Amino acid sequence: MNTRDTLATELNVLADFNPVVPESHKDAKVVMLGNLHPIVQLGVIEQMNEKPNLVILDTMNFWMDSALEDLMKVIAKVDVITINDEEARQLTGEYSLVVAAKKIMTMGPEFVVIKKGEHGALLFFEDEIFYAPALPLKEVFDPTGAGDTFAGGFAGYLAKTEDFSFENLKKAIIYGSALASFSVEKFGTERMINLGKEELYDRIVQFKNLTQFDLSE
Amino acid sequence: MNTRDTLATELNVLADFNPVVPESHKDAKVVMLGNLHPIVQLGVIEQMNEKPNLVILDTMNFWMDSALEDLMKVIAKVDVITINDEEARQLTGEYSLVVAAKKIMTMGPEFVVIKKGEHGALLFFEDEIFYAPALPLKEVFDPTGAGDTFAGGFAGYLAKTEDFSFENLKKAIIYGSALASFSVEKFGTERMINLGKEELYDRIVQFKNLTQFDLSE
Repeated sequence: MNTRDTLATELNVLADFNPVVPESHKDAKVVMLGNLHPIVQLGVIEQMNEKPNLVILDTMNFWMDSALEDLMKVIAKVDVITINDEEARQLTGEYSLVVAAKKIMTMGPEFVVIKKGEHGALLFFEDEIFYAPALPLKEVFDPTGAGDTFAGGFAGYLAKTEDFSFENLKKAIIYGSALASFSVEKFGTERMINLGKEELYDRIVQFKNLTQFDLSE
Repeated sequence: MNTRDTLATELNVLADFNPVVPESHKDAKVVMLGNLHPIVQLGVIEQMNEKPNLVILDTMNFWMDSALEDLMKVIAKVDVITINDEEARQLTGEYSLVVAAKKIMTMGPEFVVIKKGEHGALLFFEDEIFYAPALPLKEVFDPTGAGDTFAGGFAGYLAKTEDFSFENLKKAIIYGSALASFSVEKFGTERMINLGKEELYDRIVQFKNLTQFDLSE
Protein backbone atom coordinates (compact mmCIF):
# COMPACT_ATOMS: atom_id res chain seq x y z
CA MET A 1 0.00 0.00 0.00
CA ASN A 2 1.31 3.46 -0.79
CA THR A 3 0.83 6.54 1.35
CA ARG A 4 -2.44 7.44 -0.34
CA ASP A 5 -3.82 3.95 0.28
CA THR A 6 -2.78 4.00 3.91
CA LEU A 7 -4.40 7.37 4.41
CA ALA A 8 -7.53 6.19 2.70
CA THR A 9 -7.70 3.15 4.97
CA GLU A 10 -7.37 5.31 8.04
CA LEU A 11 -10.14 7.54 6.79
CA ASN A 12 -12.31 4.55 6.07
CA VAL A 13 -11.90 3.43 9.67
CA LEU A 14 -13.21 6.79 10.79
CA ALA A 15 -16.64 5.67 9.63
CA ASP A 16 -18.37 8.48 11.39
CA PHE A 17 -16.25 11.22 9.85
CA ASN A 18 -18.94 13.64 8.67
CA PRO A 19 -17.59 16.94 7.44
CA VAL A 20 -20.04 19.78 8.00
CA VAL A 21 -20.16 22.38 5.24
CA PRO A 22 -20.21 25.83 6.91
CA GLU A 23 -23.27 27.96 6.14
CA SER A 24 -21.05 30.48 4.31
CA HIS A 25 -19.95 27.79 1.83
CA LYS A 26 -23.31 26.22 1.07
CA ASP A 27 -23.75 28.43 -2.00
CA ALA A 28 -20.30 27.73 -3.49
CA LYS A 29 -20.36 27.64 -7.28
CA VAL A 30 -17.44 25.21 -7.48
CA VAL A 31 -17.09 22.20 -5.20
CA MET A 32 -13.94 20.08 -5.12
CA LEU A 33 -14.51 16.68 -3.51
CA GLY A 34 -11.17 15.51 -2.12
CA ASN A 35 -10.13 11.86 -2.21
CA LEU A 36 -12.27 10.51 0.68
CA HIS A 37 -14.86 7.74 1.08
CA PRO A 38 -17.58 8.19 -1.57
CA ILE A 39 -20.22 8.36 1.16
CA VAL A 40 -18.44 11.34 2.71
CA GLN A 41 -18.25 12.93 -0.75
CA LEU A 42 -21.98 12.34 -1.33
CA GLY A 43 -22.69 13.85 2.09
CA VAL A 44 -20.93 17.06 1.05
CA ILE A 45 -22.92 17.38 -2.18
CA GLU A 46 -26.16 16.88 -0.24
CA GLN A 47 -25.33 19.69 2.16
CA MET A 48 -25.16 22.30 -0.61
CA ASN A 49 -28.16 24.66 -0.85
CA GLU A 50 -28.48 24.06 -4.57
CA LYS A 51 -26.56 22.25 -7.29
CA PRO A 52 -23.19 23.96 -7.71
CA ASN A 53 -22.14 25.05 -11.22
CA LEU A 54 -19.28 22.60 -11.15
CA VAL A 55 -18.57 19.62 -8.93
CA ILE A 56 -15.08 18.11 -9.27
CA LEU A 57 -14.32 14.63 -7.94
CA ASP A 58 -10.92 13.24 -7.04
CA THR A 59 -10.86 9.52 -6.36
CA MET A 60 -8.58 6.48 -6.54
CA ASN A 61 -8.28 2.72 -6.94
CA PHE A 62 -8.76 2.10 -3.19
CA TRP A 63 -12.44 3.17 -3.40
CA MET A 64 -12.90 1.16 -6.59
CA ASP A 65 -11.80 -1.94 -4.68
CA SER A 66 -13.66 -1.25 -1.44
CA ALA A 67 -16.70 0.92 -2.20
CA LEU A 68 -17.42 0.70 -5.92
CA GLU A 69 -21.20 0.94 -5.60
CA ASP A 70 -21.03 4.17 -3.56
CA LEU A 71 -18.31 5.51 -5.83
CA MET A 72 -20.52 5.04 -8.90
CA LYS A 73 -23.25 7.07 -7.14
CA VAL A 74 -20.85 9.99 -6.66
CA ILE A 75 -19.46 9.70 -10.19
CA ALA A 76 -23.02 10.02 -11.50
CA LYS A 77 -23.41 13.36 -9.71
CA VAL A 78 -20.21 15.18 -10.72
CA ASP A 79 -19.20 17.33 -13.70
CA VAL A 80 -15.47 16.67 -13.64
CA ILE A 81 -13.53 13.61 -12.48
CA THR A 82 -9.77 13.60 -11.93
CA ILE A 83 -8.21 10.16 -11.92
CA ASN A 84 -4.84 8.67 -12.84
CA ASP A 85 -4.19 6.56 -15.92
CA GLU A 86 -4.06 3.18 -14.16
CA GLU A 87 -7.25 3.98 -12.24
CA ALA A 88 -9.06 5.03 -15.41
CA ARG A 89 -8.11 1.65 -16.87
CA GLN A 90 -9.25 -0.22 -13.75
CA LEU A 91 -12.57 1.64 -13.59
CA THR A 92 -13.43 0.91 -17.22
CA GLY A 93 -11.51 -2.23 -18.14
CA GLU A 94 -10.19 -0.35 -21.19
CA TYR A 95 -6.49 0.09 -21.95
CA SER A 96 -6.83 2.99 -24.36
CA LEU A 97 -7.26 6.19 -22.36
CA VAL A 98 -9.37 7.62 -25.19
CA VAL A 99 -11.84 4.75 -24.89
CA ALA A 100 -11.66 4.78 -21.07
CA ALA A 101 -12.49 8.51 -20.95
CA LYS A 102 -15.50 8.00 -23.24
CA LYS A 103 -16.79 5.22 -20.96
CA ILE A 104 -16.35 7.39 -17.86
CA MET A 105 -18.39 10.15 -19.54
CA THR A 106 -21.32 7.72 -19.82
CA MET A 107 -21.11 7.24 -16.01
CA GLY A 108 -21.80 10.94 -15.40
CA PRO A 109 -18.95 13.46 -15.75
CA GLU A 110 -18.89 15.79 -18.75
CA PHE A 111 -15.15 16.35 -18.32
CA VAL A 112 -12.56 13.65 -17.59
CA VAL A 113 -9.06 14.55 -16.43
CA ILE A 114 -6.58 11.68 -16.61
CA LYS A 115 -3.37 12.37 -14.70
CA LYS A 116 -0.18 10.71 -15.95
CA GLY A 117 2.30 11.98 -13.33
CA GLU A 118 5.59 13.06 -14.91
CA HIS A 119 3.97 12.61 -18.34
CA GLY A 120 1.36 15.31 -17.79
CA ALA A 121 -2.42 15.14 -17.91
CA LEU A 122 -5.18 14.67 -20.49
CA LEU A 123 -8.49 16.53 -20.48
CA PHE A 124 -11.36 14.90 -22.39
CA PHE A 125 -14.60 16.67 -23.36
CA GLU A 126 -17.02 15.31 -25.96
CA ASP A 127 -14.71 14.29 -28.82
CA GLU A 128 -11.99 16.78 -27.90
CA ILE A 129 -8.69 16.08 -26.17
CA PHE A 130 -6.28 18.49 -24.53
CA TYR A 131 -2.79 17.35 -23.53
CA ALA A 132 -1.15 19.32 -20.72
CA PRO A 133 2.52 18.41 -20.44
CA ALA A 134 4.32 18.16 -17.12
CA LEU A 135 7.31 20.46 -16.88
CA PRO A 136 10.47 18.34 -17.19
CA LEU A 137 12.36 19.01 -13.96
CA LYS A 138 16.04 18.79 -13.03
CA GLU A 139 15.14 17.43 -9.66
CA VAL A 140 12.01 16.29 -7.85
CA PHE A 141 12.73 17.09 -4.24
CA ASP A 142 9.50 15.83 -2.66
CA PRO A 143 6.48 14.69 -4.72
CA THR A 144 4.18 14.62 -1.66
CA GLY A 145 1.17 16.85 -2.21
CA ALA A 146 1.66 17.36 -5.94
CA GLY A 147 -1.74 15.80 -6.73
CA ASP A 148 -3.60 17.88 -4.15
CA THR A 149 -1.79 21.03 -5.27
CA PHE A 150 -2.88 20.27 -8.83
CA ALA A 151 -6.49 19.82 -7.67
CA GLY A 152 -6.37 23.05 -5.65
CA GLY A 153 -4.94 25.08 -8.52
CA PHE A 154 -7.39 23.57 -10.99
CA ALA A 155 -10.49 24.17 -8.83
CA GLY A 156 -9.22 27.55 -7.61
CA TYR A 157 -8.74 28.85 -11.13
CA LEU A 158 -12.26 27.78 -12.11
CA ALA A 159 -13.80 29.24 -8.94
CA LYS A 160 -12.09 32.55 -9.63
CA THR A 161 -12.91 32.80 -13.35
CA GLU A 162 -16.41 31.24 -13.17
CA ASP A 163 -16.03 30.04 -16.75
CA PHE A 164 -16.71 26.33 -17.11
CA SER A 165 -16.05 25.98 -20.83
CA PHE A 166 -13.62 23.44 -22.32
CA GLU A 167 -11.29 26.33 -23.26
CA ASN A 168 -11.16 27.54 -19.68
CA LEU A 169 -10.75 24.05 -18.23
CA LYS A 170 -7.62 23.74 -20.39
CA LYS A 171 -6.23 26.83 -18.69
CA ALA A 172 -7.26 25.52 -15.28
CA ILE A 173 -5.22 22.35 -15.92
CA ILE A 174 -2.19 24.42 -16.87
CA TYR A 175 -2.60 26.49 -13.66
CA GLY A 176 -2.89 23.32 -11.60
CA SER A 177 0.14 21.75 -13.31
CA ALA A 178 2.22 24.90 -12.84
CA LEU A 179 1.37 25.05 -9.14
CA ALA A 180 2.15 21.35 -8.72
CA SER A 181 5.54 21.88 -10.39
CA PHE A 182 6.42 24.31 -7.57
CA SER A 183 5.15 22.07 -4.77
CA VAL A 184 7.68 19.29 -5.59
CA GLU A 185 10.64 21.69 -5.37
CA LYS A 186 10.79 21.71 -1.56
CA PHE A 187 9.48 19.71 1.41
CA GLY A 188 5.86 20.10 2.46
CA THR A 189 4.27 23.45 1.74
CA GLU A 190 7.56 25.37 2.02
CA ARG A 191 7.74 26.39 -1.64
CA MET A 192 4.05 27.33 -1.83
CA ILE A 193 3.80 29.63 1.16
CA ASN A 194 5.82 32.47 -0.35
CA LEU A 195 4.97 31.83 -3.98
CA GLY A 196 4.38 35.09 -5.81
CA LYS A 197 1.98 35.81 -8.68
CA GLU A 198 4.89 36.82 -10.93
CA GLU A 199 6.69 33.48 -10.45
CA LEU A 200 3.51 31.56 -11.19
CA TYR A 201 2.89 33.58 -14.34
CA ASP A 202 6.49 33.00 -15.52
CA ARG A 203 6.04 29.28 -15.06
CA ILE A 204 2.79 29.30 -17.01
CA VAL A 205 4.62 31.00 -19.87
CA GLN A 206 7.22 28.19 -19.60
CA PHE A 207 4.40 25.64 -19.98
CA LYS A 208 3.15 27.53 -23.01
CA ASN A 209 6.61 27.58 -24.62
CA LEU A 210 7.13 23.91 -23.93
CA THR A 211 4.59 22.84 -26.54
CA GLN A 212 4.66 25.86 -28.83
CA PHE A 213 5.52 25.40 -32.49
CA ASP A 214 4.81 27.38 -35.62
CA LEU A 215 2.77 25.61 -38.31
CA SER A 216 3.32 28.21 -41.06
CA GLU A 217 6.01 27.33 -43.56
CA MET B 1 14.90 -9.66 -25.54
CA ASN B 2 12.39 -7.68 -27.55
CA THR B 3 12.14 -7.57 -31.33
CA ARG B 4 14.56 -4.67 -31.62
CA ASP B 5 17.14 -6.51 -29.51
CA THR B 6 16.78 -9.69 -31.52
CA LEU B 7 17.22 -7.79 -34.76
CA ALA B 8 20.23 -6.00 -33.37
CA THR B 9 21.80 -9.32 -32.38
CA GLU B 10 21.28 -10.70 -35.84
CA LEU B 11 22.88 -7.62 -37.33
CA ASN B 12 25.78 -7.91 -34.95
CA VAL B 13 26.38 -11.45 -36.16
CA LEU B 14 26.64 -10.10 -39.67
CA ALA B 15 30.01 -8.64 -38.71
CA ASP B 16 30.97 -7.95 -42.27
CA PHE B 17 27.84 -5.99 -43.14
CA ASN B 18 29.31 -2.91 -44.81
CA PRO B 19 26.72 -0.68 -46.42
CA VAL B 20 28.10 1.22 -49.41
CA VAL B 21 26.84 4.78 -49.81
CA PRO B 22 25.98 5.30 -53.51
CA GLU B 23 27.94 8.07 -55.26
CA SER B 24 24.71 10.05 -55.73
CA HIS B 25 24.18 10.20 -51.96
CA LYS B 26 27.70 11.13 -50.86
CA ASP B 27 26.82 14.85 -50.83
CA ALA B 28 23.62 14.47 -48.78
CA LYS B 29 23.05 17.38 -46.43
CA VAL B 30 21.15 15.28 -43.92
CA VAL B 31 22.26 11.80 -42.88
CA MET B 32 20.10 9.56 -40.70
CA LEU B 33 22.08 6.72 -39.11
CA GLY B 34 19.66 3.88 -38.44
CA ASN B 35 19.94 1.70 -35.36
CA LEU B 36 22.87 -0.54 -36.42
CA HIS B 37 26.29 -1.41 -34.96
CA PRO B 38 28.19 1.84 -34.19
CA ILE B 39 31.05 0.69 -36.44
CA VAL B 40 28.64 0.43 -39.37
CA GLN B 41 27.32 3.90 -38.50
CA LEU B 42 30.87 5.32 -38.37
CA GLY B 43 31.61 3.69 -41.73
CA VAL B 44 28.67 5.55 -43.29
CA ILE B 45 29.84 8.93 -41.96
CA GLU B 46 33.33 8.28 -43.32
CA GLN B 47 32.01 7.58 -46.80
CA MET B 48 30.47 11.04 -47.14
CA ASN B 49 32.38 13.49 -49.36
CA GLU B 50 32.25 16.18 -46.73
CA LYS B 51 30.64 16.70 -43.34
CA PRO B 52 26.85 16.76 -43.83
CA ASN B 53 24.89 19.72 -42.38
CA LEU B 54 23.11 17.41 -40.01
CA VAL B 55 23.88 13.88 -38.89
CA ILE B 56 21.14 12.16 -36.87
CA LEU B 57 21.84 9.05 -34.83
CA ASP B 58 19.35 6.46 -33.68
CA THR B 59 20.70 3.98 -31.17
CA MET B 60 19.62 1.74 -28.30
CA ASN B 61 20.59 -0.02 -25.07
CA PHE B 62 21.89 -3.11 -26.91
CA TRP B 63 24.86 -1.12 -28.27
CA MET B 64 25.44 0.48 -24.87
CA ASP B 65 25.82 -3.00 -23.42
CA SER B 66 27.86 -4.54 -26.23
CA ALA B 67 29.79 -1.77 -28.00
CA LEU B 68 29.87 1.27 -25.72
CA GLU B 69 33.33 2.46 -26.78
CA ASP B 70 32.41 2.47 -30.48
CA LEU B 71 29.05 4.02 -29.69
CA MET B 72 30.72 6.92 -27.87
CA LYS B 73 32.84 7.55 -31.00
CA VAL B 74 29.70 7.87 -33.14
CA ILE B 75 27.90 9.99 -30.55
CA ALA B 76 30.85 12.43 -30.66
CA LYS B 77 30.34 12.90 -34.41
CA VAL B 78 26.60 13.52 -34.64
CA ASP B 79 24.42 16.64 -34.35
CA VAL B 80 21.20 14.96 -33.20
CA ILE B 81 20.68 11.81 -31.17
CA THR B 82 17.32 10.07 -30.81
CA ILE B 83 17.08 7.73 -27.86
CA ASN B 84 14.32 6.50 -25.55
CA ASP B 85 13.92 7.59 -21.93
CA GLU B 86 15.29 4.41 -20.32
CA GLU B 87 18.27 4.42 -22.68
CA ALA B 88 19.03 8.08 -21.91
CA ARG B 89 19.05 7.12 -18.23
CA GLN B 90 21.28 4.11 -18.86
CA LEU B 91 23.75 6.09 -20.99
CA THR B 92 24.15 8.84 -18.40
CA GLY B 93 23.30 7.26 -15.05
CA GLU B 94 20.90 10.15 -14.46
CA TYR B 95 17.21 9.71 -13.67
CA SER B 96 16.09 13.24 -14.56
CA LEU B 97 15.74 13.47 -18.34
CA VAL B 98 16.69 17.16 -18.14
CA VAL B 99 20.01 16.29 -16.51
CA ALA B 100 20.52 13.26 -18.78
CA ALA B 101 20.01 15.38 -21.93
CA LYS B 102 22.56 17.95 -20.69
CA LYS B 103 25.10 15.17 -20.12
CA ILE B 104 24.50 13.72 -23.58
CA MET B 105 25.13 17.17 -25.10
CA THR B 106 28.62 17.13 -23.56
CA MET B 107 29.27 13.85 -25.43
CA GLY B 108 28.72 15.53 -28.81
CA PRO B 109 25.16 16.13 -30.05
CA GLU B 110 23.78 19.66 -30.05
CA PHE B 111 20.22 18.34 -30.09
CA VAL B 112 18.89 15.47 -27.97
CA VAL B 113 15.55 13.83 -28.74
CA ILE B 114 14.22 11.63 -25.95
CA LYS B 115 11.38 9.38 -27.07
CA LYS B 116 8.78 8.39 -24.44
CA GLY B 117 6.53 6.15 -26.56
CA GLU B 118 2.84 6.79 -25.89
CA HIS B 119 3.87 9.81 -23.76
CA GLY B 120 5.45 11.69 -26.67
CA ALA B 121 8.98 13.00 -27.12
CA LEU B 122 11.21 15.73 -25.70
CA LEU B 123 13.63 17.83 -27.75
CA PHE B 124 16.50 19.45 -25.85
CA PHE B 125 18.70 22.25 -27.23
CA GLU B 126 20.95 24.41 -25.04
CA ASP B 127 18.67 25.31 -22.12
CA GLU B 128 15.47 24.95 -24.11
CA ILE B 129 12.97 22.10 -24.02
CA PHE B 130 10.19 21.25 -26.44
CA TYR B 131 7.55 18.68 -25.55
CA ALA B 132 5.87 16.93 -28.48
CA PRO B 133 2.83 14.98 -27.29
CA ALA B 134 1.85 11.65 -28.76
CA LEU B 135 -1.66 11.61 -30.16
CA PRO B 136 -3.90 9.65 -27.76
CA LEU B 137 -5.30 6.82 -29.89
CA LYS B 138 -8.44 4.73 -29.63
CA GLU B 139 -6.55 1.68 -30.74
CA VAL B 140 -2.95 0.76 -31.50
CA PHE B 141 -3.24 -1.89 -34.14
CA ASP B 142 0.44 -2.67 -34.69
CA PRO B 143 3.24 -0.63 -33.09
CA THR B 144 5.94 -2.24 -35.28
CA GLY B 145 7.84 0.37 -37.23
CA ALA B 146 6.55 3.40 -35.30
CA GLY B 147 10.09 4.38 -34.23
CA ASP B 148 11.53 4.08 -37.72
CA THR B 149 8.58 5.98 -39.19
CA PHE B 150 9.21 8.75 -36.66
CA ALA B 151 12.90 8.84 -37.64
CA GLY B 152 12.04 8.90 -41.34
CA GLY B 153 9.50 11.71 -40.96
CA PHE B 154 11.85 13.70 -38.75
CA ALA B 155 14.87 13.40 -41.05
CA GLY B 156 12.77 13.76 -44.20
CA TYR B 157 11.24 17.02 -43.02
CA LEU B 158 14.69 18.45 -42.22
CA ALA B 159 16.16 17.27 -45.53
CA LYS B 160 13.31 18.95 -47.39
CA THR B 161 13.33 22.26 -45.50
CA GLU B 162 17.13 22.51 -45.01
CA ASP B 163 16.58 24.55 -41.87
CA PHE B 164 18.43 23.13 -38.89
CA SER B 165 17.28 25.61 -36.25
CA PHE B 166 15.65 24.62 -32.96
CA GLU B 167 12.35 26.07 -34.22
CA ASN B 168 12.43 23.86 -37.30
CA LEU B 169 13.52 20.76 -35.38
CA LYS B 170 10.37 21.21 -33.28
CA LYS B 171 8.30 21.02 -36.46
CA ALA B 172 10.31 18.02 -37.67
CA ILE B 173 9.41 16.18 -34.45
CA ILE B 174 5.73 16.94 -34.96
CA TYR B 175 5.94 15.66 -38.56
CA GLY B 176 7.69 12.49 -37.37
CA SER B 177 5.13 11.96 -34.60
CA ALA B 178 2.21 12.52 -36.96
CA LEU B 179 3.60 9.99 -39.45
CA ALA B 180 4.23 7.48 -36.67
CA SER B 181 0.63 7.88 -35.49
CA PHE B 182 -0.52 6.64 -38.92
CA SER B 183 1.91 3.73 -39.06
CA VAL B 184 0.40 2.06 -35.96
CA GLU B 185 -3.12 2.10 -37.44
CA LYS B 186 -2.57 -0.92 -39.70
CA PHE B 187 -0.17 -3.80 -40.15
CA GLY B 188 3.23 -3.18 -41.72
CA THR B 189 3.41 -0.33 -44.19
CA GLU B 190 -0.24 -0.69 -45.27
CA ARG B 191 -1.41 2.63 -43.85
CA MET B 192 1.63 4.55 -45.12
CA ILE B 193 1.58 3.50 -48.76
CA ASN B 194 -1.53 5.44 -49.69
CA LEU B 195 -1.16 8.25 -47.19
CA GLY B 196 -2.07 11.60 -48.73
CA LYS B 197 -0.61 15.03 -47.98
CA GLU B 198 -4.03 16.30 -46.91
CA GLU B 199 -4.45 13.57 -44.29
CA LEU B 200 -0.99 14.25 -42.92
CA TYR B 201 -1.68 17.97 -42.70
CA ASP B 202 -4.99 17.36 -40.92
CA ARG B 203 -3.22 15.21 -38.36
CA ILE B 204 -0.58 17.87 -37.80
CA VAL B 205 -3.35 20.35 -37.07
CA GLN B 206 -4.72 17.79 -34.59
CA PHE B 207 -1.31 17.72 -32.87
CA LYS B 208 -1.34 21.50 -32.75
CA ASN B 209 -4.82 21.60 -31.21
CA LEU B 210 -3.92 18.96 -28.67
CA THR B 211 -1.66 21.32 -26.72
CA GLN B 212 -3.18 24.66 -27.69
CA PHE B 213 -4.46 26.98 -24.99
CA ASP B 214 -5.05 30.69 -24.78
CA LEU B 215 -3.05 32.59 -22.16
CA SER B 216 -4.94 35.89 -22.44
CA GLU B 217 -7.59 36.48 -19.80
